[in-house]
Amino acid sequence: MTKIDTLKVALIQHSCSNNRDDNLTTITNGIKSAADQGAKLVLLQELHTGLYFCQEENEQNFDLAESIPGPTTNKLGKLANDLNIVLVSSIFEMRAPGIYHNTAVVLETDGSIAGKYRKMHIPDDPGFQEKFYFTPGDLGFTPIETSVGNLGVLICWDQWFPEAARLMTLAGADILMYPTAIGWDPVDNKIEKERQLDAWETTQRAHAISNGLPVICCNRTGFEFAPIEAPNPTKGIQFWGNSFIAGQQGEILAHASTDENEVLVAEIDLGRTDKIRRVWPFLRDRRIDAYQQLNRRFIN
Amino acid sequence: MTKIDTLKVALIQHSCSNNRDDNLTTITNGIKSAADQGAKLVLLQELHTGLYFCQEENEQNFDLAESIPGPTTNKLGKLANDLNIVLVSSIFEMRAPGIYHNTAVVLETDGSIAGKYRKMHIPDDPGFQEKFYFTPGDLGFTPIETSVGNLGVLICWDQWFPEAARLMTLAGADILMYPTAIGWDPVDNKIEKERQLDAWETTQRAHAISNGLPVICCNRTGFEFAPIEAPNPTKGIQFWGNSFIAGQQGEILAHASTDENEVLVAEIDLGRTDKIRRVWPFLRDRRIDAYQQLNRRFIN
Repeated sequence: MTKIDTLKVALIQHSCSNNRDDNLTTITNGIKSAADQGAKLVLLQELHTGLYFCQEENEQNFDLAESIPGPTTNKLGKLANDLNIVLVSSIFEMRAPGIYHNTAVVLETDGSIAGKYRKMHIPDDPGFQEKFYFTPGDLGFTPIETSVGNLGVLICWDQWFPEAARLMTLAGADILMYPTAIGWDPVDNKIEKERQLDAWETTQRAHAISNGLPVICCNRTGFEFAPIEAPNPTKGIQFWGNSFIAGQQGEILAHASTDENEVLVAEIDLGRTDKIRRVWPFLRDRRIDAYQQLNRRFIN
Repeated sequence: MTKIDTLKVALIQHSCSNNRDDNLTTITNGIKSAADQGAKLVLLQELHTGLYFCQEENEQNFDLAESIPGPTTNKLGKLANDLNIVLVSSIFEMRAPGIYHNTAVVLETDGSIAGKYRKMHIPDDPGFQEKFYFTPGDLGFTPIETSVGNLGVLICWDQWFPEAARLMTLAGADILMYPTAIGWDPVDNKIEKERQLDAWETTQRAHAISNGLPVICCNRTGFEFAPIEAPNPTKGIQFWGNSFIAGQQGEILAHASTDENEVLVAEIDLGRTDKIRRVWPFLRDRRIDAYQQLNRRFIN
């Protein structure tokens, strides 16, 4: 049970270059600005220290991975400590030879690692070749306990799966958080692009609604070229930004632009979760006697 | 597997009076108009033959229930046969002494009953005293096979539960359909009313997105007074209409007004389901090894 009623939260939406130090400078400045504005919890975007390398399948890219704890968590842990905030980072984790994960790390106000989440649902589409790099997560859907509440941290592709949001909720999450890297294929037309963006926002707002809790989603922005060496090169990805913070009824509390670097801040009211669940008691009425088939691929 | 690519569908949104014959006349005229416009599948709203009696807990209201088959399915079955359409009706079902259900009935083009769905998730809120009347459904989440496809018929409160939509999908539903009776409490302010309506539409559009199939939702309109005999009378319900038909990406294909009787028609492309699921392969990537806890009330 959280003891905090209102909480100022922030996210740092930005484009990335192939210069790790530059990216970390952008992030650090953003986090300092968020803390200056009173944020106590800050979410970073998916794989925020570099370009989105999963546009191609390239063995050399495994060299980008790091351990946890490692250089990024050390640096960000110190920052969390300096600023007295809880910080959610996203790391390409080398766990063991041949075992790599797409992992979120939560850093406490004392700089320690409060917990990890390893991406459970792994995409594989043209431009998003994640199954090549990331071993599916094995930590389950377990919220991470922190001084600002239990954080239901999920990652990008997980955002399309209501099961993930529900399981985090049932395990006591106070907030759902999605570090993300999603964008448009330049070959799609405007109407298709709008449908995709709208669907992406809708599905995450629906997690807030179904589960009666706030949702924070931090997406990357900027255009990144596809590597020309890729066997099936795409036309690159226009990461669509539009990071947002939503309340317990899915209402938008703050919303970022498509193409600007932004520090987005909002106050969320954690005390409202119980109020909303009293009037929208979905958790009361679930038919747990009739959900067994959710463990099936398909029923025919 | 459906063999139909495009299908013209319709829904009949209307206010109700306490005169059963008048309501059935409104419905009949609406269905005829839909069929004239080429609709092959028509959805009616929840408990469409009368006022929404669940505003109070009153034993006498059980007298409104009928058997299946019964007078309403006989009448609507004949209409379905005359017009060569598939028709989805919603009935207060008397199954046995003391066993009453909120039941949807699907009528085939030959007038026969193709199948039934008994509402699984039962609400109980001020103004919506359904747990008093309706025994929870025991037919599971089973699509109903018809000449126009496998219909994943769910009812109203079910629309807030992603589990129900997913289970219908896994069992082979081609379309999700929600007969509905939802509205505003007049004491809520405008902002709260807008949040509720938006959340209701968002959560159902999200079912289309998560599962890659079309969703049809038919809601009641009109104001209905609360019975003054009720022990805790509410201020009545302003049923909010806004029935809609959405495609596989949650995009709105047709949308009704808040307060008018309407026959809403749209063409849905069932062939698009496989196309969308190829590019948004959520069903491919579900972590069925990690979903066991969905059968729990709460995990702590």
